[in-house]
Amino acid sequence: MLLALVAPAQNLQEKVRAHRLAHEQELMKEYLEFLALPNVSRDHANVRRNAEFIAGMMRRRGLAAELLEGRTRETNPAVFAEVRVPGATRTVVFYAHYDGQPVNPKQWAAGLEPFQPVFLTAPVERGGQIITSWKPGDAINPDWRISGRASADDKAGVFAILNAYDALVRSGAAPTVNVKFFFEGEEEIGSTHLGELLQLHRAKLQGDLWIICDGPRHVSGRKMVVFGVRGDVNVALTAYGARRPLHSGNYGNWAPNPALRLVTLIASMKDDNGRVLVKGFYDDYAQFSETEKLAVKEASFTDAELLRELGLKESEVPGRSLLEGFELPTLNLNGISSANVGREAANVIPTVARATLDLRQVLGTDWQRQVGRVVDHIKARGWHVIDHEPTDEERAQFAKLIKVEVGDGYNAQRTPMNLPLAQAVVAAVQSTTSEPVIKLPTAGGSLPLIIIEQELGAKVITVPAVNYDNNQHAENENVLVRSLWDSIETFAALMTMP
Amino acid sequence: MLLALVAPAQNLQEKVRAHRLAHEQELMKEYLEFLALPNVSRDHANVRRNAEFIAGMMRRRGLAAELLEGRTRETNPAVFAEVRVPGATRTVVFYAHYDGQPVNPKQWAAGLEPFQPVFLTAPVERGGQIITSWKPGDAINPDWRISGRASADDKAGVFAILNAYDALVRSGAAPTVNVKFFFEGEEEIGSTHLGELLQLHRAKLQGDLWIICDGPRHVSGRKMVVFGVRGDVNVALTAYGARRPLHSGNYGNWAPNPALRLVTLIASMKDDNGRVLVKGFYDDYAQFSETEKLAVKEASFTDAELLRELGLKESEVPGRSLLEGFELPTLNLNGISSANVGREAANVIPTVARATLDLRQVLGTDWQRQVGRVVDHIKARGWHVIDHEPTDEERAQFAKLIKVEVGDGYNAQRTPMNLPLAQAVVAAVQSTTSEPVIKLPTAGGSLPLIIIEQELGAKVITVPAVNYDNNQHAENENVLVRSLWDSIETFAALMTMP
Repeated sequence: MLLALVAPAQNLQEKVRAHRLAHEQELMKEYLEFLALPNVSRDHANVRRNAEFIAGMMRRRGLAAELLEGRTRETNPAVFAEVRVPGATRTVVFYAHYDGQPVNPKQWAAGLEPFQPVFLTAPVERGGQIITSWKPGDAINPDWRISGRASADDKAGVFAILNAYDALVRSGAAPTVNVKFFFEGEEEIGSTHLGELLQLHRAKLQGDLWIICDGPRHVSGRKMVVFGVRGDVNVALTAYGARRPLHSGNYGNWAPNPALRLVTLIASMKDDNGRVLVKGFYDDYAQFSETEKLAVKEASFTDAELLRELGLKESEVPGRSLLEGFELPTLNLNGISSANVGREAANVIPTVARATLDLRQVLGTDWQRQVGRVVDHIKARGWHVIDHEPTDEERAQFAKLIKVEVGDGYNAQRTPMNLPLAQAVVAAVQSTTSEPVIKLPTAGGSLPLIIIEQELGAKVITVPAVNYDNNQHAENENVLVRSLWDSIETFAALMTMP
Repeated sequence: MLLALVAPAQNLQEKVRAHRLAHEQELMKEYLEFLALPNVSRDHANVRRNAEFIAGMMRRRGLAAELLEGRTRETNPAVFAEVRVPGATRTVVFYAHYDGQPVNPKQWAAGLEPFQPVFLTAPVERGGQIITSWKPGDAINPDWRISGRASADDKAGVFAILNAYDALVRSGAAPTVNVKFFFEGEEEIGSTHLGELLQLHRAKLQGDLWIICDGPRHVSGRKMVVFGVRGDVNVALTAYGARRPLHSGNYGNWAPNPALRLVTLIASMKDDNGRVLVKGFYDDYAQFSETEKLAVKEASFTDAELLRELGLKESEVPGRSLLEGFELPTLNLNGISSANVGREAANVIPTVARATLDLRQVLGTDWQRQVGRVVDHIKARGWHVIDHEPTDEERAQFAKLIKVEVGDGYNAQRTPMNLPLAQAVVAAVQSTTSEPVIKLPTAGGSLPLIIIEQELGAKVITVPAVNYDNNQHAENENVLVRSLWDSIETFAALMTMP
């Protein structure tokens, strides 16, 4: 009975495509509604509305949707469903996350709002215009972009996975593996409660393989399979000066300037060649294997094009490709702020200066150990490190006071590329495209996949859906419509792996 | 006849004080209305409303007020009036400015708005509370503060000068010098058109001496005479990275981070002991004379108290007093901003990073030469300096691109402390207080007084009115009521100098 339902791969892809072509309008209508729901991770009430929306999407597709709750209602729920397939020997859990990064609407281009999705002719940074004339029922050009927070990262994953399943079933086909759906709501704040959810709902979440739909595809636009992710942790720094802002003429070069001191501290962390100067920072990382190096080398053909598109003369470390760098832990300055600049600047010595650092982890490094090294670096430069606003006593005792706040972190995860399961995933994705699939030992970005490996013993492999130039995590986030459409085919193939 | 009108100094001060005590309510009512008028320098329409308000104040005091216009209506007018005194041998021009620094209302404490003046029990930084119960007619405690932009800097100067004149006249006394009033409207943007106004209205503005009422008094609260000011210029820096914001995991440590690069550049400008490392920065300054050094030494007794009040363990250059440092040119980081921090921080590589520098000038230094040295410093570190947004060609050609925008600057001015006119000013101020008057060769702050000296050949001396802890140029600006009251007496004495 199972065999009768499963069409040959080529035929299946055609059926899935035909189904999508016939239903583009309703798929898009639902997706635009989904994107209009604010989903910033810490906005719990709205995040929950997103979870309910996904549950509705599932029910419309015949799935028994369920919200997996944490220990308290403060935990954003995961949305879950499963399909048991008679005779299936493998269980695959399909993962995406539906929460989004914070937004600062002022930073978005004119006419764009984070939660008012619109079509664009191209990314605004390349002169894209809003297509104001479009209305439901009008044709949708696959070269258009949809603008909106999470349009790419990572509501697109929810879209691709649920619509792949739906297209399969409504085309008269069926999965060959047991399919589970798991959509997380806290990925953009470090998946704080993912471990808790996996523990509380362990039985439901068992599987041989988790396929993660997140992150961008290769710059070439080719489909991609990624065998690992980096870990991550944020460190927020607040340096303190005088208790009140001071006139820069009356007090300048006498009252210490916390902005200048923070700037000097951060500058001491990296050299002009992009090498982190924090002691021990590169002591622990595992080098790429020969297989991994080869895969990275094969995929490293787009740096020159990428530099041109980004308006950059050269990379931070000339001679090392973008992908080769994924082997290493990083330290990035996400943002810095003290007093005002531009027209709002006043001639003051600021009272505080703030910065946020992002420390990416790779196989071998431990996020807590890396943070410890950064803190040691700060202390070695004469700062007194605190975790609160300074008291009067601390102000009197220490010349250089800095608050260090460490976010929830996690380590990297990497699946060996030569496992049979890994090769089956590559074959499935390859069956949907004539171009060679890009294989990467690790993504540059982070997901807490190590928790899945540790808690459930499952293998984890990532299959990204969206265009690389999507401004994820930033203003003007967007997704290429074509990538939504063809990812439906990718995931339908993964649900029908032999 | 003149002699009959002039009372002995002590008697005069008493009369002036009695007049003020009898009219506190009406003086305060008018001042609160004045402070409620937004006066950010570039807000030309509102600045002009302030000028009209001052003209009204003058007319109510029997003065023929006049707006001195520049070549275009874009120049904020100065407000002028004069009083010719029969037999007077000296003409003194009393100066204050009525424009204010930019405001960012979000940075003000809860309940405080820049242009909604209220009474406070103390500065908010020291636990001050808003006095919500006060209504016109209620007694006004002289230890209270008035919160509001320009409450101290420098509408207080307009208040002190006009009310001193009014108290004199309404007490039945009269000035002994020809009095001119000149209230400027562009001081906080570098007095862009002051030279133009002095040229256009040269005949009206002739005088032997300009007395400038601006800046804070000595930290001890004692009255003060200041014989010079620093010059000033702002330099805005904008460093460029990729054309669009990038995910810090997918591109970190490959795409150059403009925030990190700007931070590194700024850190290179100063060492850990507060010394500016820009080549030639200290080549040109004139050291204090022996008289000036002595005056500075006598006034340098409040640093320890000031550090305690500000919550600082030590100054940027331990061993050098605040006032001793006024001999030197400075480089201050007024503010820095790139992407977001704190809860709004996202894991991105920013596209731009901005900072504003403030370069104070002293006797001997030239603002354009100092800016040239800073630009040379930037270039020597591999930056390509531009004055516009980078073009595609520039992006392709230069790895490190920075926009440098130089504001309107001016040089320092210093009047010798041993001139007879200088000694007469000190004596007049001393006649109103039992505590020794503080004498300073130069203020730390800046005013374009050099233009007055150069254009009109007048001597220039500053007599500040307000408390030092006034948050001028920053959020929560405030003025101590007592300093408003006793400055009326100071300026009445200056108008009746022998």
